[in-house]
Amino acid sequence: MSDNTVFKLLGRRLRLAVIGGGPGSFIGAMHRQAARLDDRYELVAAALSSDPERSRAAGQGIGVAQDRCYPSGQALIDAEAQRPDGAEVVAIMTPNDSHYSFAMQALERGLDVICDKPMTNTLQEAEALHARVQATGLVFCLTHNYTGYPMVRQAKAMVMDGQLGEIRLVQVEYVQGGRAKAGPGRRAWKEDPARGGPSLVMGDIGTHAHNLLRFITGLEVAQVAAEVGSIVPDRVTHDYAGAMLRMSNGARGSFWVTQAAAGVENGLRIRVSGSLGSIEWHQEHPQVLQFKPLDAPAQVRTPNGPGTLPLAARASRIVAGHPEGFHEAFANLYTDAADAIAARRACQTADPLSLYFPNATDGLQGIRFVAAAVASSQQQGAWTAL
Amino acid sequence: MSDNTVFKLLGRRLRLAVIGGGPGSFIGAMHRQAARLDDRYELVAAALSSDPERSRAAGQGIGVAQDRCYPSGQALIDAEAQRPDGAEVVAIMTPNDSHYSFAMQALERGLDVICDKPMTNTLQEAEALHARVQATGLVFCLTHNYTGYPMVRQAKAMVMDGQLGEIRLVQVEYVQGGRAKAGPGRRAWKEDPARGGPSLVMGDIGTHAHNLLRFITGLEVAQVAAEVGSIVPDRVTHDYAGAMLRMSNGARGSFWVTQAAAGVENGLRIRVSGSLGSIEWHQEHPQVLQFKPLDAPAQVRTPNGPGTLPLAARASRIVAGHPEGFHEAFANLYTDAADAIAARRACQTADPLSLYFPNATDGLQGIRFVAAAVASSQQQGAWTAL
Amino acid sequence: MSDNTVFKLLGRRLRLAVIGGGPGSFIGAMHRQAARLDDRYELVAAALSSDPERSRAAGQGIGVAQDRCYPSGQALIDAEAQRPDGAEVVAIMTPNDSHYSFAMQALERGLDVICDKPMTNTLQEAEALHARVQATGLVFCLTHNYTGYPMVRQAKAMVMDGQLGEIRLVQVEYVQGGRAKAGPGRRAWKEDPARGGPSLVMGDIGTHAHNLLRFITGLEVAQVAAEVGSIVPDRVTHDYAGAMLRMSNGARGSFWVTQAAAGVENGLRIRVSGSLGSIEWHQEHPQVLQFKPLDAPAQVRTPNGPGTLPLAARASRIVAGHPEGFHEAFANLYTDAADAIAARRACQTADPLSLYFPNATDGLQGIRFVAAAVASSQQQGAWTAL
Amino acid sequence: MSDNTVFKLLGRRLRLAVIGGGPGSFIGAMHRQAARLDDRYELVAAALSSDPERSRAAGQGIGVAQDRCYPSGQALIDAEAQRPDGAEVVAIMTPNDSHYSFAMQALERGLDVICDKPMTNTLQEAEALHARVQATGLVFCLTHNYTGYPMVRQAKAMVMDGQLGEIRLVQVEYVQGGRAKAGPGRRAWKEDPARGGPSLVMGDIGTHAHNLLRFITGLEVAQVAAEVGSIVPDRVTHDYAGAMLRMSNGARGSFWVTQAAAGVENGLRIRVSGSLGSIEWHQEHPQVLQFKPLDAPAQVRTPNGPGTLPLAARASRIVAGHPEGFHEAFANLYTDAADAIAARRACQTADPLSLYFPNATDGLQGIRFVAAAVASSQQQGAWTAL
Repeated sequence: MSDNTVFKLLGRRLRLAVIGGGPGSFIGAMHRQAARLDDRYELVAAALSSDPERSRAAGQGIGVAQDRCYPSGQALIDAEAQRPDGAEVVAIMTPNDSHYSFAMQALERGLDVICDKPMTNTLQEAEALHARVQATGLVFCLTHNYTGYPMVRQAKAMVMDGQLGEIRLVQVEYVQGGRAKAGPGRRAWKEDPARGGPSLVMGDIGTHAHNLLRFITGLEVAQVAAEVGSIVPDRVTHDYAGAMLRMSNGARGSFWVTQAAAGVENGLRIRVSGSLGSIEWHQEHPQVLQFKPLDAPAQVRTPNGPGTLPLAARASRIVAGHPEGFHEAFANLYTDAADAIAARRACQTADPLSLYFPNATDGLQGIRFVAAAVASSQQQGAWTAL
Repeated sequence: MSDNTVFKLLGRRLRLAVIGGGPGSFIGAMHRQAARLDDRYELVAAALSSDPERSRAAGQGIGVAQDRCYPSGQALIDAEAQRPDGAEVVAIMTPNDSHYSFAMQALERGLDVICDKPMTNTLQEAEALHARVQATGLVFCLTHNYTGYPMVRQAKAMVMDGQLGEIRLVQVEYVQGGRAKAGPGRRAWKEDPARGGPSLVMGDIGTHAHNLLRFITGLEVAQVAAEVGSIVPDRVTHDYAGAMLRMSNGARGSFWVTQAAAGVENGLRIRVSGSLGSIEWHQEHPQVLQFKPLDAPAQVRTPNGPGTLPLAARASRIVAGHPEGFHEAFANLYTDAADAIAARRACQTADPLSLYFPNATDGLQGIRFVAAAVASSQQQGAWTAL
Repeated sequence: MSDNTVFKLLGRRLRLAVIGGGPGSFIGAMHRQAARLDDRYELVAAALSSDPERSRAAGQGIGVAQDRCYPSGQALIDAEAQRPDGAEVVAIMTPNDSHYSFAMQALERGLDVICDKPMTNTLQEAEALHARVQATGLVFCLTHNYTGYPMVRQAKAMVMDGQLGEIRLVQVEYVQGGRAKAGPGRRAWKEDPARGGPSLVMGDIGTHAHNLLRFITGLEVAQVAAEVGSIVPDRVTHDYAGAMLRMSNGARGSFWVTQAAAGVENGLRIRVSGSLGSIEWHQEHPQVLQFKPLDAPAQVRTPNGPGTLPLAARASRIVAGHPEGFHEAFANLYTDAADAIAARRACQTADPLSLYFPNATDGLQGIRFVAAAVASSQQQGAWTAL
Repeated sequence: MSDNTVFKLLGRRLRLAVIGGGPGSFIGAMHRQAARLDDRYELVAAALSSDPERSRAAGQGIGVAQDRCYPSGQALIDAEAQRPDGAEVVAIMTPNDSHYSFAMQALERGLDVICDKPMTNTLQEAEALHARVQATGLVFCLTHNYTGYPMVRQAKAMVMDGQLGEIRLVQVEYVQGGRAKAGPGRRAWKEDPARGGPSLVMGDIGTHAHNLLRFITGLEVAQVAAEVGSIVPDRVTHDYAGAMLRMSNGARGSFWVTQAAAGVENGLRIRVSGSLGSIEWHQEHPQVLQFKPLDAPAQVRTPNGPGTLPLAARASRIVAGHPEGFHEAFANLYTDAADAIAARRACQTADPLSLYFPNATDGLQGIRFVAAAVASSQQQGAWTAL
C-alpha cells in the first residue's frame, strides 16, 4: 500500500463525501480514518445531521467547509453532483434502511459508492441496487471490512493457490456480547425491524460471517438449514442464529452467530479444512493465521512473514511483527476502492490485486443468505436453497 | 486425590480385571495407567487376546499372573467370579459391539464395571444395560474421560454455583484429523458398522462432545436438527456431523464434530454462555478455563488457582502451575469410581464429590443423542426429540 | 481520540513538515500515516531527498506542493520559518546522526519538533538538545511509539493507581531476527557507528525497551551491569545486549535485547511485578494485557474492556474487541503532541492525559542508559550508575 | 513407553523404597505416582516419618507392609540391604541437607538411587557424591523433572540434529509467585540456610533453569555474572536472582529466576536461538514447542505430531493432541532410570534413548552454578568461572 496510485493516476486525491456517521458514531469516525490512512481521499462534503445547524457544526468539527455541510444525503448528492469540483465518491454510513436510497441516488449521478453493510434491508432492494451497479459500471464497495485483514487475504490466496486442496468443511462463527443484557442496545434504530432489517443479528454480523466464508473459500452457500431467534428473554429482535450449510462444491459447514454471549467482545472466527490442510483465523488476534498442513508441523503465519502471498502483501503497510489492526483492514477496502475508482476515471486497467474488495454481488449474496436463513427457521429448519 | 480412600475403607486395593486393550492398543495402556496412578486398584486378571497363548504372553508383559490371563472376556468373568480372591471390578475396552455383552455378564456376577464409550452400539442395548445397572445398584463408570479434567469440573461447579447465571447458549465441537485421508483408519473394526456402530464419528467423538455439554451445563439436549455424513469421497462410514440443539431449558446450541479435518489433532472445545458470563475450554490446553464475566475483566482460571471450587480441587493432585493432562483426567474417573465402589463394598456413604463420574444414565443419553441425530439427518434435518 | 482538539483550538490543522523518510523508507510512511490518522496535521512541506529533482518527485508523490519540496532539512527549516503559512511542526526521521542538528535548527526557529529515536548518537548532544527544549518551552516528542499502545498506557495507569503495589521486579526484552544472518542489514548507514551510533542494537531497540520500562513503572534505572556485543561471527556493530538492573526504588530488573534471534519478528515484551500483582505485555499481541493479581484469578485486560482507566481509554478509537495496532499506537503520539502543541499555540492548558508522550527528558535518559551499558560492558560488567 | 522393559529383563518390577515425602508432602505423592505410572516399580519399603508410630501409619496409608515402614532413612537402608527381597532402588525426597547422607549410604549398600534436587547443599558434598556415583557405577537419577517433558526432549533432539544451527543466544527464566508475600513459606525448613541451602531460590528453581538450559543446548555455562538476593522486604533467604551467562561455545545468555512474582504460578520458560532458527518452550503449556526457522514460517510442534524425533517419541505415551503433563514428565525420569537399572542388573546394554535422565554430573554442575552465581553476586557481579 506504499505507492499512492491515485496521485499517480490523477495527480490529486479523490474527492469524498460522507453521508451519516455524525457525532458519537463509532463507524463514522472509522470510515473517515480509513479514508485518510493511505491518503487517497480528500474529504470535501458531509451530511452528518438532518438539522442544518448541527450538520454545519459537526462538519466543521471534522474539517469540512461550511458550505459543503449539508442537512441531508439527498441535498449533498444533488449539490455536489453539480459542482465542477464536486465529490466523486460518496460513502454511506447511515442506518440500514436508507442505504438503498442514497446509493441509488449517487449511482444515478455517476458517483462511485462506498456503503456500509448490510447493503440493504430487503432482497428486492438488494437486487435492484446490484442491477444498477452492474448497469452503470461504477465502483460499489461494501464495507465487509474483515476481508481487509492481511491474514484473511492470505487465507484466500492460499485457498486459491491450492494449498488447502479441495475444501471439505467450514466453520464460521461471530460471537459478541454487546446485547447480552435485556433491553435495547446503544443504537435504538437497530431495534426497529423497519430500520434495522428483518433479522438484527443476521444483518449486523451474520452477513459478515457469511461474507468472510465466501471470501476465503471462493464457494457459495448453496443451502442452509437454520434457526434464528432470540435467547435473551422478552427480546423481539434476533440475537442468535445457528445454521448448517451445504456449500456449492458439496463441502459442509457450520455457522453460529450471536450478540448475546455475555462478556465476549468481537469473536469472529473461521476454520476451513481441505484435503491438504486446515486453517484457522480469529479476528481478536488478526495477525495470526494458523495453518495445519496434512502430515507436516502446524504453522503460524503472520503478515509479511515467510510464505506471504501477493494478495496479503498488498494488504500490509509494514514489516513483519508490527501488528496492523481493524483500522488498517478497513483502510484496505477504501484504498482498494480508490485504486479501482482512479483507474476507471483515468481509463486505465486497475491492478488486479486491488479488485478483491466486497462489491454489490457480495452484498446481494449476503441479503439472499439472510432471507434463506430466516425462511428456513420459519419452516422448522428445512434445508433452503439460496 | 491425595488420601487413598480405598485403603482407608478396605485396607487394600480393589482387585481389577481388564477385558481388551491388548498389545498395540493405545486405550488399553491408558486404562491401566489410569488405574495405577492413584493406587486404588491392583490388576489381577486380564483377557487381552482370544488366542490363549498370546493372551498369556501379553498378560505377563503387563504383570498379570499366568493363570489369570484368560482367552476371552467370558472366561475371565466366569473364573474370577468363582475365586475367593477374584476380581471385583471389570474394565471393558473391547470394540464397541461387545461392551453390552461383557458388561451384562459382569453385572450378573455382581462385579462393578468400568466401560469404554460409547456404552453400546444400539439404543435397545443401552436401555437394557441401563436398566440392569439400576436394578443391581452396582457401580457402572463410562469413560467419558474429558469430564475428568479439573477445569471441566471447575466449569460444571461454576455453573452449579450460579456464576454463569441462566444458561442461554452452548457451542461444542470436536474436530480431529485422523481420518482426513481416504481409506480406513488404524483400527479396521471401526469401519464395520456392525462393530463400530451406526455412526462412527458420532460414536467415537460425538458422544464425548454431547456428554461434555451435558456435564458442564447440567442440561439435556431436548431436540436436535442434524446432518450426519461423510466429507471424504468414497467413504461409507460417517466422518462428519453438524447439528443445532434445543436444550431442556430453552437454551440454544451448536454442535460440530469431524474426524476428517486435515492437520487438526484433538480439538474438543466448548463454549457456554449464561446471563452472567461465558466460559470457554479447549482440550488441547486443558489447564486453562477462560471465564468472561458480564461487565468485568476476563479471567483465566487454572487448576488449584484462586477461585477453585471443591469439585475441581478434588480432581487435581498438584499445586497450581503444574499441568495435569489426559492421563490424570482419565485417572480421575477411575479414582472416583474406586471410591464409590469401596464405599459400596464397605457399606459406607461415598464422598458426594466422588460421584460425578459418567454412569449408565449418561451412556444411555449418549446413545439416544446419536440415534436422534441420525434420524434427523435421514429426515432432512427435521427437529427430532430425544 | 474522537474529538479533534486541534480544530477546536485553532480552527484548522497544524502545518507539518517532514525531513527524511523518502521512497522505500518504512518509517517515513509510518510517520505520515500516523500524522493523518486523527486528522490533526496537514502535511505542507517535505525534504525527502538531498537531490533537488528527486526531492520534488518524491514530495509530489505524497501530495506536497512543488515549491515546498526541499533538497535538505536545513533548506526546509529556513524557508518554512519565513513563510507566514509556514510549517509549525517539523518531524525528523533521518539517520540518527542528523537528529540533533535538525532538531536544534527547528527549535531555534520556534518550531515544535517530533523526532525519531534514538534522540541523538552522543550523550553530549542529548544533553544540549534536552537543555534547548527546556529553554524554549517548545514541544519535543520522541517517537518511542510503543508507549502509545492502549494496553501499555493501561499498564502505566494501573501502576500509578497502585494496583500493582510497590514495584519489586521488572523484566524487559526486545528480541528481533532481522540481523540473524551475517552481513549488513537493509540500511547500510546503520552499520557505520558514526551514523548509527555507538551501539546499534542499543540505539535501535535497547532505547525502546528502556523507555517502555520507565514509562510503565515510573521508575528510573539507577545502575546497570551489562554485556553488549555481537553474537553473529565477524560482525562489528552490536547485535546483542544483556543487563541486570537496579531501579531507583530498589527494585531489580532483567534486560535482554537482540536483533539476531533467527526467525523472531518483533518481540518486545515486558513483565512487572509488584507486591499486589504482576503484569505482562507483548508487542506482538498488543491488545492483551495480562494481569495476575495476588490471590485472585488472572485477568486478561483489553482496550476499552472493563476496568479500562482514562489514560488507556484516551489511546483507543474503537469499542472493545476491534484490535488497534502499531499505526494507532504511533498515531497516539502524534495526536498527543498535536494537542499539546495546539494548546500551547492557543495559550490554553493542555489536557493532562495528552502529556504522556515521550519527550526530551525521556530521550536524554535513553542515551544515558546506552552510555552506561556500554561503559559497564567495557568494564567487565561492573555496576555503573546512570 | 509402552513396552515394559523391566518386566522383559527381570520378569518382575524393581523393588523401590522411599525416604521422605510423608503426609502433606506434594513431592512425595508425585514421586510415588511417577513410579507407578509405567509400572516398572513395586513400592516395598518407606521411611515417611522419624516417629515410628507415624511412620507405620503413613506407610500403611500408601500400602506398604507394616514391617517395612521404618522410622528413619538409615534404618530403612540398613534393613532393606540385608533382606534377600530388599529394595533395589531408594528414592530420596527429604529436605535438601540430608540428600547427601542418604544417597551415600544407599550407594554404599549397592542400591541405585533416585534423588530430589538440588543434589546437595554444598559443593563439597556434591563433588564427593558425584565421585562416589562414578566409582560404584550405580544409577543415580536426579529429578530435574522438567527435562522429562516430550517437547523439552524434542528441543534437545532438534539441537542435536543441527536444526537450530550453531547456538548463539539463550534465555531461561523461572518465575513463581509462591513467596510473593512477606513471611515464611509453606515449608519452614526451607527458610533455614543450614537445611535449605545457601540460596533458596537458586537451589529450589535456579538449578532447574540451569539444568534445562544445559539439557536442551548441550552446552555448559562457562562464566556467570549474577545478582542474587531478596526483593521482598525483611526477607533473609534469597527470592530473586538475575544473571548474564557466557556459554562454553561463546553463546550469550540471560537468566532470571524468582519466587516472589505475585500472582505468577510456575513460569519456567526457555528460548534458544541458533544460526538456523529459534525455539521457545513454556512449562505452563508444555505440549507446545514453538520453532521459528530462519526464513520459513513459524511452527508449532506438539508431542507425537509431525517431525517428532525419537527422543521425544519415547517420552510420550499417547497419540498427538492428548496432553501429557507434569506427572508424565516426572514419570519419564523414573522410567528411564528403571530401564537403565534393569539393564545394569540384567547385565544388558540399556537403550541409549533411556539414558537422558539427569545424573550426578548434572547435579554437580548445578551446585557449581549456584556457588558461582552467589560468589559473583558477592563480588558486585564480577564474571565468575564455574
